[in-house]
Amino acid sequence: MKKIAVVGGDLRLAKVAEYLAEDGYVVKIYGSNAPFSGGVKVHITQTLRDCLHDAHVIVLGLPATCDDETVSTPNFDQPIYIRDILRYMPKDALLLAGRISEKLHGEMIMHGIRCVDYFQREELTVRNSIPTAEGALQIAMEELPITLHGSRSLVLGFGRIGKVLAKMLHGIGSDVTCSARKHYDKAWIHCMGYHAIDTADILPVIDQFDVIFNTIPVKILSSEVLSRVRRDSLVVDLASKPGGVDFDAAKERGLNVIWALSLPGKVAPATAGEIIKETIVNIMNEIL
Amino acid sequence: MKKIAVVGGDLRLAKVAEYLAEDGYVVKIYGSNAPFSGGVKVHITQTLRDCLHDAHVIVLGLPATCDDETVSTPNFDQPIYIRDILRYMPKDALLLAGRISEKLHGEMIMHGIRCVDYFQREELTVRNSIPTAEGALQIAMEELPITLHGSRSLVLGFGRIGKVLAKMLHGIGSDVTCSARKHYDKAWIHCMGYHAIDTADILPVIDQFDVIFNTIPVKILSSEVLSRVRRDSLVVDLASKPGGVDFDAAKERGLNVIWALSLPGKVAPATAGEIIKETIVNIMNEIL
Amino acid sequence: MKKIAVVGGDLRLAKVAEYLAEDGYVVKIYGSNAPFSGGVKVHITQTLRDCLHDAHVIVLGLPATCDDETVSTPNFDQPIYIRDILRYMPKDALLLAGRISEKLHGEMIMHGIRCVDYFQREELTVRNSIPTAEGALQIAMEELPITLHGSRSLVLGFGRIGKVLAKMLHGIGSDVTCSARKHYDKAWIHCMGYHAIDTADILPVIDQFDVIFNTIPVKILSSEVLSRVRRDSLVVDLASKPGGVDFDAAKERGLNVIWALSLPGKVAPATAGEIIKETIVNIMNEIL
Amino acid sequence: MKKIAVVGGDLRLAKVAEYLAEDGYVVKIYGSNAPFSGGVKVHITQTLRDCLHDAHVIVLGLPATCDDETVSTPNFDQPIYIRDILRYMPKDALLLAGRISEKLHGEMIMHGIRCVDYFQREELTVRNSIPTAEGALQIAMEELPITLHGSRSLVLGFGRIGKVLAKMLHGIGSDVTCSARKHYDKAWIHCMGYHAIDTADILPVIDQFDVIFNTIPVKILSSEVLSRVRRDSLVVDLASKPGGVDFDAAKERGLNVIWALSLPGKVAPATAGEIIKETIVNIMNEIL
Repeated sequence: MKKIAVVGGDLRLAKVAEYLAEDGYVVKIYGSNAPFSGGVKVHITQTLRDCLHDAHVIVLGLPATCDDETVSTPNFDQPIYIRDILRYMPKDALLLAGRISEKLHGEMIMHGIRCVDYFQREELTVRNSIPTAEGALQIAMEELPITLHGSRSLVLGFGRIGKVLAKMLHGIGSDVTCSARKHYDKAWIHCMGYHAIDTADILPVIDQFDVIFNTIPVKILSSEVLSRVRRDSLVVDLASKPGGVDFDAAKERGLNVIWALSLPGKVAPATAGEIIKETIVNIMNEIL
Repeated sequence: MKKIAVVGGDLRLAKVAEYLAEDGYVVKIYGSNAPFSGGVKVHITQTLRDCLHDAHVIVLGLPATCDDETVSTPNFDQPIYIRDILRYMPKDALLLAGRISEKLHGEMIMHGIRCVDYFQREELTVRNSIPTAEGALQIAMEELPITLHGSRSLVLGFGRIGKVLAKMLHGIGSDVTCSARKHYDKAWIHCMGYHAIDTADILPVIDQFDVIFNTIPVKILSSEVLSRVRRDSLVVDLASKPGGVDFDAAKERGLNVIWALSLPGKVAPATAGEIIKETIVNIMNEIL
Repeated sequence: MKKIAVVGGDLRLAKVAEYLAEDGYVVKIYGSNAPFSGGVKVHITQTLRDCLHDAHVIVLGLPATCDDETVSTPNFDQPIYIRDILRYMPKDALLLAGRISEKLHGEMIMHGIRCVDYFQREELTVRNSIPTAEGALQIAMEELPITLHGSRSLVLGFGRIGKVLAKMLHGIGSDVTCSARKHYDKAWIHCMGYHAIDTADILPVIDQFDVIFNTIPVKILSSEVLSRVRRDSLVVDLASKPGGVDFDAAKERGLNVIWALSLPGKVAPATAGEIIKETIVNIMNEIL
Repeated sequence: MKKIAVVGGDLRLAKVAEYLAEDGYVVKIYGSNAPFSGGVKVHITQTLRDCLHDAHVIVLGLPATCDDETVSTPNFDQPIYIRDILRYMPKDALLLAGRISEKLHGEMIMHGIRCVDYFQREELTVRNSIPTAEGALQIAMEELPITLHGSRSLVLGFGRIGKVLAKMLHGIGSDVTCSARKHYDKAWIHCMGYHAIDTADILPVIDQFDVIFNTIPVKILSSEVLSRVRRDSLVVDLASKPGGVDFDAAKERGLNVIWALSLPGKVAPATAGEIIKETIVNIMNEIL
């Protein structure tokens, strides 16, 4: 059975280690004092060298590193250097890491290291839309004085997050409208049983919605559009930087806007860990 | 148009006042400094007498009173006495109040006051199961490190809250099991597409569930049953006093148990207010 | 293990026999030439006496008899007399039959026979609403030139069939309105995410619906109401006799009205058989 | 307002004409004796020339022609020649037709005719998946002796038809498994709440399904796979030619296989007509 070294990382990576051990892999851990459930046998090593020396696969966190020099170790108080990993790991081991920079990836290749960024995998991206959407629901439930059931909700953008979010909102009883630009997507919105609207046409109807979720990384919710949003409506922006809301205009108007980023790790770290684990298993099955 | 006096009460009753005004009723308010939206014309009076003297209907909060002497006024700093309401209200006015004691109800009748407890109405009870269920979902989302989507959930009891809760859990993607005792209810659970289990048979399978919602006001989750609940599972008890969980046993075992009461007013006061408003309108249409 | 004699009956009862045999019961059959799947061991006997003499339980069809003298045997060419069943069956055996008349039931009791009408059981009635509702959907799909997805449908009555039918229509993407009279039921309709309308108020809106399902055994769809139904709408009447439609008025107006009775046995005999089987097992577990 | 000439075609095209007239277009018709509802003003002309001479847009059926010489006219008893259409139509008119051959399309371009095949439009293809999926459900309901509710169904392929079909099956209460090959699609299947299986792995589990829907135009259901399909299971093949089933092997084994093609026009001509109409409006808005 494959030996896997898990180095650093947050609670999600601790879950990855446990789930891999449950699947039967031999799992060594270094650089994490996250709480592990007793039932699963993961081996916590005393030194990095001990963790790495016989590993077939090395797994780093998400992100793997913030400075391209040290491994992300939010649950560990000593630095772990990337160069030490390169020094101690077997030359033919596979390195799996999340969100690695192009620069670091280039260095790995120069060292002859096989390295895959699991955060780039489509199945991870797709499945992460579940904790993202559920986290968005949680925020809306916490912020709104009304129930989502019976509310009128608008989802801007019908990509992977928009699709899952619309499904959950519908499932809980909200009256869902989705916006898109392409005829193709609007036809899909119609097929799924939601109201379809062209993203260009939201201005005159934006005041009908109790909650507005944005998934488009473009300033859709401009000052002009925000001027029509009801003051008792909630805006949840799920778009990555630079976001889709003119935050200054929203603040000026006194709107309740939540910019919610990186929800999977925050609202459902165990599920996020499971998704990373399954992606890692897919990668190992394809490469090893 | 009918004149309605709204006296005391929390944020829900403030919403009731606004919604009644939106429906076209003339609404006077005394005893609440809750924030009112600017758009709706409610008349805030300076004295109780001014509020009551020409009212066709008087509405008190939920609960109307905690001590059978003063009106509940969480957003007001002076006491309002029930005896003053009786003194100033027109003798033929209709008094609507929530959760009034038998003693107080008896007194009203002795004074010749027509008095209805809107909290006893079935349509309120049924519709309150929506904010209750959605609040239960919110708690589970906040407490669990996994998503409800893909989780295994157990709903104990298939009454009004159990039915709505199961539907929402299913709608968000949880694998739902419901317990009941009667063949009739188990047949319904099957019809609705959930797994059915006899409430007497939960012991051997209780460890399969990530989250357990109880709606039965009987100690179903006894010390014996709790001893089989997984330590990483969440228990949410929605049953009114005395609740359905042996809380001491749960604490001893280190389980995460949330006893969640009166959710509608907490998680969705505006929706709760709308439900009270519609119930009040039904009562007025029937009686006046 | 209990020995069960299955006598007469249609395809449903043949399925009952097979499913009981799959559950491990010893099953003898007389009076049915329905096709049996090869895999299951049911014993087809040559004589009624052979079938009955050592039975613990005797099961008749649905209905058990049409004339109170002979057993219903749509798949058998010789008559089987009730009096012969009484003659050959062990005196302490349990007789299970569907839709037996009061007269016949009285005679059984006089003979000291323990006799239960499984068609009276609530769990059968509830679960039969699934094949009934699905059969109603099938009829609507066959008759309408539009898809149910995107259609506007009206379900008159929110009893057991109305509830399941509304759920399936909603699940397939129809815009569902349900009618009821009680506030309680209208509150439930709202909770389930459908539009609610008072049954007394259907006249002015009846022309908005592409398909109208009636479940109320009262002439709701009177001549006056039918005069407002669109000519391209479909009416499916699921109410037992006398039905809920003024059929003469409907015919005169040229409306497409389908009176659909006894759907479970017609559209899904195997499922109908399974439901009878489970009901029989419940009865045996309670009585034997 | 634009003038539109509708020539030939089946019931769907008659609906297209009516819906366009309802939208306010001036609609002339030639070559169809389909029944028109009285309420809508469409102008049935006596000659092709009269129909075409002042048209801005000419609409032909689906398919527009079967022999590249005459227009498809299933509800008309005289031939209408393509060359006559070219002769009488204004040179700058837009010709919209379904499923035109490359040869004919080439000729049109040579004559300087602006010509669009509306059947190639993505929004039509996507929206047609609704009547296709609902037709597949209807077939399964008609053929199976069990209800879809509670059945185990397999959908081979997670393209546009697979997605809508799975959603409807789930909505009606079937336990749905979808097959796909890509991790990306399997992740989506999981997100949507169905069971995911790799299309390569169906052999050992194929006997678990009561109904199997194929949407992949490749011989997935080979002789080997079919040898494992239960004899009481139903196979519905929705794949266009050459289909996805080894029909000879299926016949030999005595399996119930339905090859269901062109469902929208068969099961829901009015809906199919509405989809064509909306596609035509989109094309006109883009081009004219």
